[in-house]
Amino acid sequence: MNFPRTIENLIAEFMKFPGVGRKTAERFVFHLINHIDHQSVKEMSQALLNLKEQIKYCSVCQNLTDEDTCPICLDNQRDQSTIMVVESPKDVFSIEDTLKFKGRYHVLNGVLSPADGIGPNELRLNTLWDRVAKNEIKEIIVATSSTQEGETTALYIKRVLEKTDLIISRIGYGVPVGLNLEYADQLTLSMAIENRKKI
Amino acid sequence: MNFPRTIENLIAEFMKFPGVGRKTAERFVFHLINHIDHQSVKEMSQALLNLKEQIKYCSVCQNLTDEDTCPICLDNQRDQSTIMVVESPKDVFSIEDTLKFKGRYHVLNGVLSPADGIGPNELRLNTLWDRVAKNEIKEIIVATSSTQEGETTALYIKRVLEKTDLIISRIGYGVPVGLNLEYADQLTLSMAIENRKKI
Repeated sequence: MNFPRTIENLIAEFMKFPGVGRKTAERFVFHLINHIDHQSVKEMSQALLNLKEQIKYCSVCQNLTDEDTCPICLDNQRDQSTIMVVESPKDVFSIEDTLKFKGRYHVLNGVLSPADGIGPNELRLNTLWDRVAKNEIKEIIVATSSTQEGETTALYIKRVLEKTDLIISRIGYGVPVGLNLEYADQLTLSMAIENRKKI
Repeated sequence: MNFPRTIENLIAEFMKFPGVGRKTAERFVFHLINHIDHQSVKEMSQALLNLKEQIKYCSVCQNLTDEDTCPICLDNQRDQSTIMVVESPKDVFSIEDTLKFKGRYHVLNGVLSPADGIGPNELRLNTLWDRVAKNEIKEIIVATSSTQEGETTALYIKRVLEKTDLIISRIGYGVPVGLNLEYADQLTLSMAIENRKKI
């Protein structure tokens, strides 16, 4: 026997989230029924809508932002000649938390992964080449994860840019091999930024 | 550094769910951003609203339902002289799945727990006494969990009703002691219903 339709619908929605099975989805729904008031559920529903309606990619660095251009790209106090290339918006927030980097970012929104059909055109690389061509950039720090795909991506960026006089460096010491960047602690990330090496 | 406000708001909403911490909430939000389209998020948001707007307690048995009276109470094919008393709506659905019980239900929406300030008035017991007084009931099967609170509740119901000529029984064999009813498998629940004993 199924729960009432309203409940079944919401269970099905919750099961779309990663790691959420039927029992967990049921717990979420009954938690809402028993412990969350009507007004709070309205706010939750609105927060969901806002996510898709208000969030966009920064026109410069491709980071997630509520505005057209993100606060980091708008901040003129920051070093405009250094760009840290990262895989995902989460990585920007992790690196910002170390307070060790005062340049700008470029978010690829992925890594090269031929097996999954992700080539250079699937990443936001063209906007990176544009930035390099149109601005006075001195250094590109490639901060992709130390996974195979992350390394391939770093190497690809180095190959494309090696004939320019840019310094291409790679964060190195500190980030444990095989770990996704977002799970690294702040000290490790700080180390990795300080000990970056030329590739 | 924080994520954009829209993202932070939704992370805060997801963290209201049981067992969801900051990292899990972030995963949910980024899953929505990267893998769920705008239309699906709208549906999710609507499903949330519907939950609070459409779900109510059955006017007879206090089970959750989309209508004023639940389909079980409306079903005249079912034995109206036997009432199975359970703790929560989830238990109704678990017992229905066994196909072993063809009577009606009464959902207490809790168990007696003096330590948490839950006395008889906090449970939906008055409507149970009403049903017993106004209908021709022969048997009450108390199917609360075999926890201390569940046993106390069963005993309380027995005490209140022991001067009537109702058969008061308790599901017994099968349900592992200390386990909440919703986690019991269907075979165990079937056994427990067949082997109920008078208390």
